[in-house]
Formats: sequence, C-alpha cells, structure tokens
Amino acid sequence: MGEGESVLFDFQEHLVGYVTLSFSTEGSHPDAPAWIELQLAERKQELSEDADKYHGWVSKSWIQQERIHLDTFPCRIRLPRRYAFRYLKLTVLGISTKYRLKVEEASCEAVSSADDADLKPYETQDAELLAIDRIACRTLHDCMQDVFEDGPKRDRRLWLGDLRLQALANAETYRQFDLVKRCLYLFAGSTFENGRLSAAIFTEPEIEADDTAMFDYSLLFVPTLLDYYEATGDRETLFELWDTAKRQIAMAAESFGETGIVRDSDRLGWCFVDWNLSLNKQASAQGIYLYCEKAAARIAAILGDIEGERAFMQDYEAKRSAALRYLYDEEKGVFISGADCQVSIASQVWMILGGVTNDAGILDRAKEAPDAVGMVTPYMYHHYVQALIDAGRKTQALEILRAYWGGMAKEGADTFWELYNPDDPNESPYGGTIVLSYCHAWSCAPAYFLRKYFSE
Amino acid sequence: MGEGESVLFDFQEHLVGYVTLSFSTEGSHPDAPAWIELQLAERKQELSEDADKYHGWVSKSWIQQERIHLDTFPCRIRLPRRYAFRYLKLTVLGISTKYRLKVEEASCEAVSSADDADLKPYETQDAELLAIDRIACRTLHDCMQDVFEDGPKRDRRLWLGDLRLQALANAETYRQFDLVKRCLYLFAGSTFENGRLSAAIFTEPEIEADDTAMFDYSLLFVPTLLDYYEATGDRETLFELWDTAKRQIAMAAESFGETGIVRDSDRLGWCFVDWNLSLNKQASAQGIYLYCEKAAARIAAILGDIEGERAFMQDYEAKRSAALRYLYDEEKGVFISGADCQVSIASQVWMILGGVTNDAGILDRAKEAPDAVGMVTPYMYHHYVQALIDAGRKTQALEILRAYWGGMAKEGADTFWELYNPDDPNESPYGGTIVLSYCHAWSCAPAYFLRKYFSE
Repeated sequence: MGEGESVLFDFQEHLVGYVTLSFSTEGSHPDAPAWIELQLAERKQELSEDADKYHGWVSKSWIQQERIHLDTFPCRIRLPRRYAFRYLKLTVLGISTKYRLKVEEASCEAVSSADDADLKPYETQDAELLAIDRIACRTLHDCMQDVFEDGPKRDRRLWLGDLRLQALANAETYRQFDLVKRCLYLFAGSTFENGRLSAAIFTEPEIEADDTAMFDYSLLFVPTLLDYYEATGDRETLFELWDTAKRQIAMAAESFGETGIVRDSDRLGWCFVDWNLSLNKQASAQGIYLYCEKAAARIAAILGDIEGERAFMQDYEAKRSAALRYLYDEEKGVFISGADCQVSIASQVWMILGGVTNDAGILDRAKEAPDAVGMVTPYMYHHYVQALIDAGRKTQALEILRAYWGGMAKEGADTFWELYNPDDPNESPYGGTIVLSYCHAWSCAPAYFLRKYFSE
Repeated sequence: MGEGESVLFDFQEHLVGYVTLSFSTEGSHPDAPAWIELQLAERKQELSEDADKYHGWVSKSWIQQERIHLDTFPCRIRLPRRYAFRYLKLTVLGISTKYRLKVEEASCEAVSSADDADLKPYETQDAELLAIDRIACRTLHDCMQDVFEDGPKRDRRLWLGDLRLQALANAETYRQFDLVKRCLYLFAGSTFENGRLSAAIFTEPEIEADDTAMFDYSLLFVPTLLDYYEATGDRETLFELWDTAKRQIAMAAESFGETGIVRDSDRLGWCFVDWNLSLNKQASAQGIYLYCEKAAARIAAILGDIEGERAFMQDYEAKRSAALRYLYDEEKGVFISGADCQVSIASQVWMILGGVTNDAGILDRAKEAPDAVGMVTPYMYHHYVQALIDAGRKTQALEILRAYWGGMAKEGADTFWELYNPDDPNESPYGGTIVLSYCHAWSCAPAYFLRKYFSE
C-alpha cells in the first residue's frame, strides 16, 4: 500500500478483543515511518461517516479509531486497547515513496467470559428464529466480560437494569452464574451511604459506583437476586444480599404519597423505563415498584420470614389498589401517567408486569390512543414481550420478536443493537451511528424468550 | 482541560528522548475515554502549521504528532517513540462532559551518547561566539545516538558526508571516538558487492546500507578515516579499514575521462555537494576527489606504503593539472563546471580544499559573477568556511560564522538547522517547516571551527 490507499478487513463475525497486525515492506529500505489510521466498526455503515464531522453529545472519544506510526519493519503490533468490531479499515496516511507497506497479518484475540461450548443449541425448525437466537446469544456472549457490560464498544459499564435482562438470558444459555453473582456483589458492595444502589458500576481502574441512582434500577436488584436464587438455589447469596435488596424497597417506599401512588418527578433520569424524554414515568414506576415488591415478598418467604412476607404483601395490595383507583382511566380503558394523564405503552406494560391487571386489552387500546407514547429501546421492548406473554398473548409476543429483532437481523445485524427504530434503522439520537453501540446487552431478549417460551 | 482545550509545555531546551505523561481527572468518574493529540516541535513556529494541509514531498509521517486514547485514570504513559523537541502541545480532542482532564506530569528522558561532563568550556569573552558554540555543541550532542545521526527528528540515518563533519566537531568537543570508530566500521561492513560505500546506513531493525551511493560521499570515507587516526592514533583501525578506503579512490578514478577531468552526469544525486538542483557538480567532484586522494596518500605514508603514496601523488598531480587546464577560466578568474561553464561558490571552495589553488580571490570573483550559483546548506557553508581558512582568510571565515550560524542564533535557535537561508529564515524546500529538521548534524560546524581556530 502507498499513501492514501486503504484496505478493509471483514472478520466475518462480531468480535470483542485485541487486534494484532503484522507489517512488512516492499521496495527500498524504509527511509521514513509509515503513518496509518485504523478504524474499527461493528457495522460497515459506520465507516462511511466522517469522524471529524461528528459533533453529537456522546463523546467522540468512543469512536474506535487510532493513528499509529510504524518506525521499523518488519513489525508486529498488538494494540493495547480492546475493541468491539467486525470491520477493520486500515488507511496509509503517510509513507515515503521509496517503499510500500504490506499487511502480513490482521488477527484478533477475542475475549469473553462466556463459553460457546456451554451453549446448548436452540431446538427449532424455524430458520428465522434460529438466526434471531444465534444473534442474541452472540450479543450476550460479547457483553459477558469481567462483568455483564451494557455494550463492549461504548459505555462498558455494569448497569443494574441491563444486568437483570442479561442474567435472564444467561440462565437460558451460557449459565455462567458466577458472573451474575459477582455482579450482584459488586452492586451490593458499592451502595451509597444511605444504602441505595447506584444505577451503574465502573470497574476500571477499580470498582466504583456511578454517582447516579434511578428509581427503577435500584429496585430491580430485588427480582435479579430472586432470579439468581431460583436458577441456582444459592441460598447463602440470597441471605447475604437480602438486606441490600430490602433496603431498596424501603427507600423507594419513601417516594410514595398518601394515596399510595409514587410521586412524579421532573428530574431528568429519576426513573429510566425507556430512553424517551417525552415519556412520563410515574405509572411505570408504580408498576416497577409492585413488580419488585412481589419479588421481595417471595424472597422473604423463601428465607422463612413470614412476618416480612406478610408486610410486603400488605403494602403491595394497598399500592396495587391505589394504582387501579388513581391511574386507571375507565373511559379510555388504559392506565395513565402524570399530571397530564399521559397514555403510553410503557405504563400498560408495567401495570401488567406489576400484577395490577392481566388484561392485555390495555396494550391494544393504548396503541390506538391518539398521542400515545411509544417504545424506543430494545430494553423496553423486552418488557413489552414479557407483558404479552404474562397476559396470555404468546403468539403476539412471537410476532414482536420476529418483527423487532428479526428486523435487525434483516438489516444484517451480527449482534443486536442499543437502539432500533424499525421505521428508520440508521436513526441515532446521539447525532451519528459512529458512536452507537451495535452489540448491546439489553437487546439480547430473544435468547431468553425463544428458549424459555418457544422451544419445540 | 475540557474538549478543545490545549496546553503548551516549553521544555526550555532542545531534547531528544522519551516523553512520559501522567494524567488525573476532576469531576465525576470518567464515563468515556479521553482522546488527546500531542504535537512535538523543535521550533514553536511548527505548531502554527496545519499538519493536515502539509502535502510536500518529504513524508508527512515524519511530523511529530500522536493521537492517543486514555481509558483509565489516573494513568501514566511513556510514549514508545523517540522525539526531538523543545515544545509539546497537548490538545483534548474528545472527552465527556462528566469530567475534566488534568496533566499531572510531562517529562522527558533525554538520550545521547555524548556526555556534557566531557565537554570543556569554549574559552572566549565574546558572548555571541559563546552562544554559537553552545548551540553547535547541543546540535552535535543531540545527534549523537547509537550512531552520528543526521537529524534526530527526521531521517535519523548515518550519512557519510555528515559523519565527517560530526567527527571533526566531536574531536574538538565530546571526544567520543568510539562512536566514530563504530560508524566507520558500520560503513566498511556494509559496502555494495563491488566494494563501494553506500551514502548512508540504516540501523533499524538491523544494520543495512541504503541502496544509493554518491560520488563525493563514498570518497569522503578516506579523510574521515585519516581524521580519526590523527585524533586517536588508532593504527589498528586505520590498517583494517585502509582497503575499504583505497577502494573508494579506485572506483572514483573510473569516472574520469582521458583529460583527467571527472565526467559530468545528469543523474540526480550522482554527487551531493549541496542541496541545490541547479548546481553543476563536475568541478566540485574534481576538487573532492583531489581532497580525498591527498588524504589517501597521507594514509599510505603513515602505513609505510611508499609505493602507494607515490602512486596517489602522481595521479593527484595529473588531475590537479587537468583541473587547472580545463576548469579554470582565465578571463573570469574562476573555476567553471559542466558543459555550460557554470560559475558557483561550490566549485571554488572545492578547488581550494582540493589544493588546486590557494587563491581566495576566486571566491570573491565567483560571488560577483552574474548568475553565480550560491550555497544552500550549512553543509556547504562548512566547506566554504574551511576554504576561507585554508586560503588565509580567517577574519572573513569568522564573519561567516557570525553571519550564518549567528543568524540562526538570533532567530532563537536552540540547535542549528538542516537548512538556513538568511534572507528567508522560514524557507522550506519541502513545502512546510513542519517536516524540517531543526537539529541537524551537518550544521554543527562552529563547534569545530571556533574551538580549533578561534580560541583565545
């Protein structure tokens, strides 16, 4: 290769790992360094974007690009950073005319704490579902590192709400429960002074909680702990982490008013639910609280704390009744949220998951309501699918899996994405696909749903 | 520092070495890498140029710039490449708004095979000369690495003609004769199959001769070997390398016509002399041959080879007479060169150094001649100063040292430059100062001339 020339390596699959490149030269003895640029991309699409023109609000430092000088030849370099990619584009930015650069080797040492040898095949004759499952497993596989990362390209943190979905999928696939246990302990060992769990954990250079907490994420520790126990029977861990779990319920309870409805808030990020700024979170928060309180009552029962179980169920019933009384719009036949009585899919989903109703009709009616707020993230879609199944709509749930995750598969996804809008597959709320994470853990739902509910 | 901010470190002196940087952060836990750019410059001026806009013919890979991602904090990085610089500019290209980057340390482990403890002070009351000597010594010091490099920023090769000037300055300053010996052996051990010496040696990844040879550079091995012997008395090395030296005279002799004048050539770079494409090299080549043959005769005498000495002197006298007969223009009173009878300073300089004449008037007359070709490099100026001294013009030689090297000193030089045009100090034949070498060995002349001829 001479100056300005480039080559694209397609590694054929999504990888997380460390790249090694070997170079030799042709022509005279190199009389100047070679200066090369490397661009690594999960989707080919990213390579068509000009990184210099990206000015979105996610830091451009996440763009996987390097500029390197090669001073002596032949040489073999192992890049010190970890990348998430399928495509590697190498461009010669500067070289002398006395010689040409030759790439002898481009390889990747892929890393994961999941082992594909542990993965039982998903039994189905349906080629589409088989493909969706394979992509979902790869997504989970590549996010399973020292912790369950949210995305191996960008963020790379351990988020509580995301952990829950990964742990569910893990139980149906790699069954690497030590990793789930490690993550539960990392959260429990990094609470704020008041005992509240952070929304996320940094692991480098040492374990440190993020300085933000969210209503739903803190609470979701409780069902994550219960799921872990139910999959493993590890009573010791359940017992050790029970105080931490209970504390989340107790602290969340302080956010309720006298009517038994969680107080709404206009503080950005007070409760996550979905990546949607126009979504009112009040009703969802109510449903999430109920969902988690049911799990708390179950844990109390398992641990023989009859008194505790009764207290949780008593509180649960009161708040469930409050939801029916204050959040259900009889006329519209849907649950509403916030002072403006917003109708959203999210509110219906969490009312079903929280056990307030098992009437799937609220989902239909919400969808048809004018100005109903829809769903944005695969994270929200996961809960939507679960709500459909819980409300007896298995066929519709499978349709969603085929339409939503199948839609990404049709776009050529090797792993499932952080964000996917079926109407605009390249949409990026960050101002460029170049910073998007195309292998994102909260999108691994099919590995859980297909194997648990749709095996032949 | 936040995104887009930069800081300039002035290390106060020219350094060659390895940079270490330490970073910490302020604010929240870093939730994204920091992406920084480093620009290293020998002169501040270089930093005002846009590297992206450089499209000259010297490879832009020589521009000292790096882009680095910092993933975890605090961190300390030692850059693996060696730089030649005084200024280090650090710019934050990308960072998250959740934290700010703090540079805790910026240091350089400077390297050289010269030791300032070996350097005796230059004795003078003249502040200007003292400054010129100090800058010249620093230039030599920073070029003395594993070999005598031509420039520690760019090229970094061991060139034969440059080695000769460095060895002369070394003998008056650091007296690191082992390095001279090493370089002589590197050349002698890397000849082409026909025994001819290459113009330059690469040392990385292993010793390899450049694939080009130049008439003058090959020949200049002979006086370099003689100078080394005269400074050290190392007769063993003189004896061991004498065959190689003789071979250069013998091969150069083949380039002469029947008249005893070296044949001219239009092959680019057949003979270096000066960095000047319009300069005809024929007369200079004749003078250089004579200069080197005198040195060969002297070595033969030292080694007791009376027969050899006589043969060299016989050939020398024949070619000296030929020069006087065919290259001297009686009318103009100057030596001419090539089919177009070109008048240049270079031709006069080498006729004096070659012992054809000691009439300094040819320099005056050449300067006044219309269309006379002038000098470009400090390398050529070195030989000009020597010719003035040899022809009894010491005062004028000192004026040149003050005007030419003193001119660079007045421009704020920390080390002397690869190229200097007193009429346009920022001129670059490469299309940008950003690739110029501002510490260049062939510019270290004052350390030799001042200490040898102008000590008090």
